[in-house]
Amino acid sequence: MSLSAFDRIAVVGATGAVGVEALSILRERGIPAERLVALASERSSGRTIAYGHEALTVSPTTPAAFEGVDLALFCATAGVAREFVPRAIGCGAVVVDNSSAFRADPRVPLIVPEVNRARLLGDRPAQLVANPNCSTILLLVAIEPLRRAWGISRLVVSTYQAVSGAGASAIDELKSQAGEVLAGRSAAPQVFTEPCAFNVFSHNSAVDPVTGLNVEEKKLIDETRRIWANPAVLISPTCVRVPVVRAHSESVTLTLDAPASEAEVRGAIASGEGIRIIDDRAGNNFPTPLKAAGGDDVLVGRIRPDPATAPEPDGRTRGWQLFLCGDQLRKGAALNAVQIAEELGALRGAPITPF
Amino acid sequence: MSLSAFDRIAVVGATGAVGVEALSILRERGIPAERLVALASERSSGRTIAYGHEALTVSPTTPAAFEGVDLALFCATAGVAREFVPRAIGCGAVVVDNSSAFRADPRVPLIVPEVNRARLLGDRPAQLVANPNCSTILLLVAIEPLRRAWGISRLVVSTYQAVSGAGASAIDELKSQAGEVLAGRSAAPQVFTEPCAFNVFSHNSAVDPVTGLNVEEKKLIDETRRIWANPAVLISPTCVRVPVVRAHSESVTLTLDAPASEAEVRGAIASGEGIRIIDDRAGNNFPTPLKAAGGDDVLVGRIRPDPATAPEPDGRTRGWQLFLCGDQLRKGAALNAVQIAEELGALRGAPITPF
Repeated sequence: MSLSAFDRIAVVGATGAVGVEALSILRERGIPAERLVALASERSSGRTIAYGHEALTVSPTTPAAFEGVDLALFCATAGVAREFVPRAIGCGAVVVDNSSAFRADPRVPLIVPEVNRARLLGDRPAQLVANPNCSTILLLVAIEPLRRAWGISRLVVSTYQAVSGAGASAIDELKSQAGEVLAGRSAAPQVFTEPCAFNVFSHNSAVDPVTGLNVEEKKLIDETRRIWANPAVLISPTCVRVPVVRAHSESVTLTLDAPASEAEVRGAIASGEGIRIIDDRAGNNFPTPLKAAGGDDVLVGRIRPDPATAPEPDGRTRGWQLFLCGDQLRKGAALNAVQIAEELGALRGAPITPF
Repeated sequence: MSLSAFDRIAVVGATGAVGVEALSILRERGIPAERLVALASERSSGRTIAYGHEALTVSPTTPAAFEGVDLALFCATAGVAREFVPRAIGCGAVVVDNSSAFRADPRVPLIVPEVNRARLLGDRPAQLVANPNCSTILLLVAIEPLRRAWGISRLVVSTYQAVSGAGASAIDELKSQAGEVLAGRSAAPQVFTEPCAFNVFSHNSAVDPVTGLNVEEKKLIDETRRIWANPAVLISPTCVRVPVVRAHSESVTLTLDAPASEAEVRGAIASGEGIRIIDDRAGNNFPTPLKAAGGDDVLVGRIRPDPATAPEPDGRTRGWQLFLCGDQLRKGAALNAVQIAEELGALRGAPITPF
């Protein structure tokens, strides 16, 4: 897997929370500054952002900005994606879009490499790939070993989502609000409609007046079904924000298609891709968002049989529970996008095998 | 319901987080300071605590301290309860114990008045009553209207628990740690094994090496079954701490014994005892721990059909989801204990009706 197939790489939304993380990951991959184009809104244009010991100057996101770009990582809003992704494609760039703009488009693969990278190999390599919603990515990485081994028919998921999902301004709001509360003052919320410091609140996305599901919950259902290519999987999601800076946690209760033993379940998860198990019952040491922050792996722990599911006579059971944490800005967004680009780069760079 | 049946009321653990709240509630009920005995550990003995415009002097918890006491509210550890509840009973006091010491004892009623106050009317009024675990109380108040109307066979619950459940020192730790983090310093956890500021972690109670359930989760299962007198109810709990000061939240997915419509479910909950519905989908206004803090009601919202449960042809369904918040120190502990005492007082004070 390689980004070397792409000479010139644009990061759209380079000053946002996800864009900053994408640049950090590109730097870890050794991409020199001269191969990068940092794009953001008109407002941020001209700003200089540090890139290791080098610096990048932010340019405005205009149609002309994509000329000569081979790979565009869109780390911006769905509105920006709808306007500029077609321009980037028109300029010949391969695009990975972090927004929800194209996630439901059947022509656009929705990819978590650990789960469905094979989907990138269609009749021809995709030019536009959508990056799933953060909660969906983290969940699907954690439970992929179970899906492969036994199949999964039902998921009940409650999330504990960091404020970073709402952008850099939300992180600032959490910190400033916490400071105000500690000083005995009140602080009116601006980014959210509820105070976020020392509070918990239902996810800030719009709530469907009929189903009662918020947009985040609907994404978790729709995107999981699409990525698994399984419209029958049953999902009961509840998405909630917590006063955490940048990693999401999820409490998961699931039903396998076939019964498994605890040793089998643990073995499968331990051999999964992109997963690190932290599950020390005696030491009460389990995944936390602070342990996940800044890392690449999805942390999985509290792996246990669901006490509400009757086991088979041999002790195997279909009901399982676990708790997971993952960095929402990295694997939940920028890292997954870069990994998709690496998969695409490998496809692009591969020599065509003659018959 | 009345506390007037009890001339002299002792609060054991008067300087702890729950004890302070119990005194505050007794004051709201108009109990004068001269009817109160504030008991705590030897260490706190002699301290003066404010009681409205009056003051209470803390005495040590000794066997002799219960002489002349008519009602003892135990707001202390299970160890203190095991040692001193028998002494208080020996002195003739009626006892409500907040700890887990007697919750599993079949001779001791485990009471949430809104759910099973009838259980207090045995062959003779109980002299010792156990107050359930906070998460259990809040959950059972919120869903009691559904249980009464349709029955409940299955519960999947993920909690978002405030640090106050671990006592006043945990509240101090959250605040001081948050200040350190905001100042760019690190702070070693003392009360918990994980940092609590800007973090989320699996509940700090001991984890069973075989089942993988922690003690808080086991309480939720065992106490619900006891209070409902239904050992068959299936419960899948995950208990998690969040950086919130004093109110717990719970994400609930449940299965009714019989299908219901959304109007029927909402109507039932709206007419429930001790509940306030906050469920404004358009305004994204739902229960939060900050809204619940300091109040008596359990707040219920996000009431919606479970998207994973197929509805009946008439649109009714057995699967429902909701989100609840309640003050862990009040209804989750001290208030429920005082309400139990009021029920007991009413029984004690009632004249015997001659045949």
